[in-house]
Amino acid sequence: MAQRPSRSAFPALLKIAHELADLSGPVVLKHFRSAVAIDNKAGKGAFDPVTKADRAAERVISQTLLARFPDHGIVGEEYGTREGAGRYNWVVDPIDGTRAFIMGSPLWGTLIGLLDNGAPSLGIMDQPFTGERFWSGATASYVRVGKGPARKIKTRSCASLSTATLTSTHPDLFEGPAQQKTLAALKGSVQMTRYGGDCYGYCLLAAGYVDLIVESGLKPYDIVALIPIIERAGGTITTWDGGPATNGGNVVASGDVRVHEAALKMIAKASN
Amino acid sequence: MAQRPSRSAFPALLKIAHELADLSGPVVLKHFRSAVAIDNKAGKGAFDPVTKADRAAERVISQTLLARFPDHGIVGEEYGTREGAGRYNWVVDPIDGTRAFIMGSPLWGTLIGLLDNGAPSLGIMDQPFTGERFWSGATASYVRVGKGPARKIKTRSCASLSTATLTSTHPDLFEGPAQQKTLAALKGSVQMTRYGGDCYGYCLLAAGYVDLIVESGLKPYDIVALIPIIERAGGTITTWDGGPATNGGNVVASGDVRVHEAALKMIAKASN
Repeated sequence: MAQRPSRSAFPALLKIAHELADLSGPVVLKHFRSAVAIDNKAGKGAFDPVTKADRAAERVISQTLLARFPDHGIVGEEYGTREGAGRYNWVVDPIDGTRAFIMGSPLWGTLIGLLDNGAPSLGIMDQPFTGERFWSGATASYVRVGKGPARKIKTRSCASLSTATLTSTHPDLFEGPAQQKTLAALKGSVQMTRYGGDCYGYCLLAAGYVDLIVESGLKPYDIVALIPIIERAGGTITTWDGGPATNGGNVVASGDVRVHEAALKMIAKASN
Repeated sequence: MAQRPSRSAFPALLKIAHELADLSGPVVLKHFRSAVAIDNKAGKGAFDPVTKADRAAERVISQTLLARFPDHGIVGEEYGTREGAGRYNWVVDPIDGTRAFIMGSPLWGTLIGLLDNGAPSLGIMDQPFTGERFWSGATASYVRVGKGPARKIKTRSCASLSTATLTSTHPDLFEGPAQQKTLAALKGSVQMTRYGGDCYGYCLLAAGYVDLIVESGLKPYDIVALIPIIERAGGTITTWDGGPATNGGNVVASGDVRVHEAALKMIAKASN
């Protein structure tokens, strides 16, 4: 469950989070659909454009945070963890959706999340190619497209699985017969299933266009930034067994709590 | 195989095709991520936003064509066919990727194609949300993002299936055990598979970010506009048995002809 920092600290923390996204966007975008992408096929050991973009963006984020808040910690995908001295730890993934990124699809994003005493307290998902930015304010979630105004977003109402739209990044991420059985049960119960999404799918859920997301094998940096965006838009996000999603793992997110409860029940049943 | 209209006619036809996309973009975009989208869940018989956007865009395209080229025919998804008196027939799909559209994903597009004596002669794929437009010129293909300059696109080199990136709209579109076997064989041979794409995937292939697309059950309006874009970017597109893809059906597109030949062989083998 997301936790809000003290009222006095929140505006400054949100401001720096936006600044971090402003800084990382152009750095990552420089490598998107670059000719270099072809070199990625050179195989293992090749210094691919994703790694390049990831590292460059993580570096600028990390350095900015160190200069501004030297006592804050940072957990990143490329550089690992820098221990902080206080309650705040930033959790960053410059390119969530690397496979989408590699194939030129815009369904990836930069995730910037903040843990306050271990609980997700604010998050940003920035998509610099489409110009979309989703984030959690203190009590609501927002989206902005390009230089347009910030618009409050809300999850939509959905009474049952039978009218739900389900998304998931890729069916092969469900490992083993038990997880495949879970996916099949959910797919057979919902109105529509679409694959391909990563962090972009969670933001579509927060904005009221998708009802349910079920994924497995997530890392903390895949999800920490998204938790407050979803929760403050009215949604619910937990692990498959209903616990906090902060550490990643097997995650389910829903716009309507009725769909969430039905999905958790179905998951429990399918894995027995 | 795409055919080019006579050199003198091509510029005027391409100009009107761009004008049609300029007109349809704002019409379709008005309905994208509209609050009305929720009503779509009212079920069958509901006048959903996709139908509304589709009809409105097809109407403006059809009326503009009738005023400018009264002897041209038009084949659309919503209004069906208007017989022409000459060699030219326009094939239009205002929203290719309706499921992506419904769930707020930008991976849909407006397809405007032209048949010249039955052969695809020019095509546009317009994505008004991201501001991307892909099209075929007389001898090359191009992309433009927003008000940026037109940039020539080319498919990339890829020597074999083992290094290919495969995309397909959805695994469930492969119907029956034989088609599922075909998909499994291809998936097992390529480097990476991603789902979710519709017309957007074909344009990523034309631009050199994807190597192979395999789909089944396409309609002519799903593919006519894309054929010249792919071919003039250096790619190959046929049916699963190597025939012309103009009428849709089971389609395979490749950036490198070596991958195309390997995919056709594998498809033939899997369906035996």
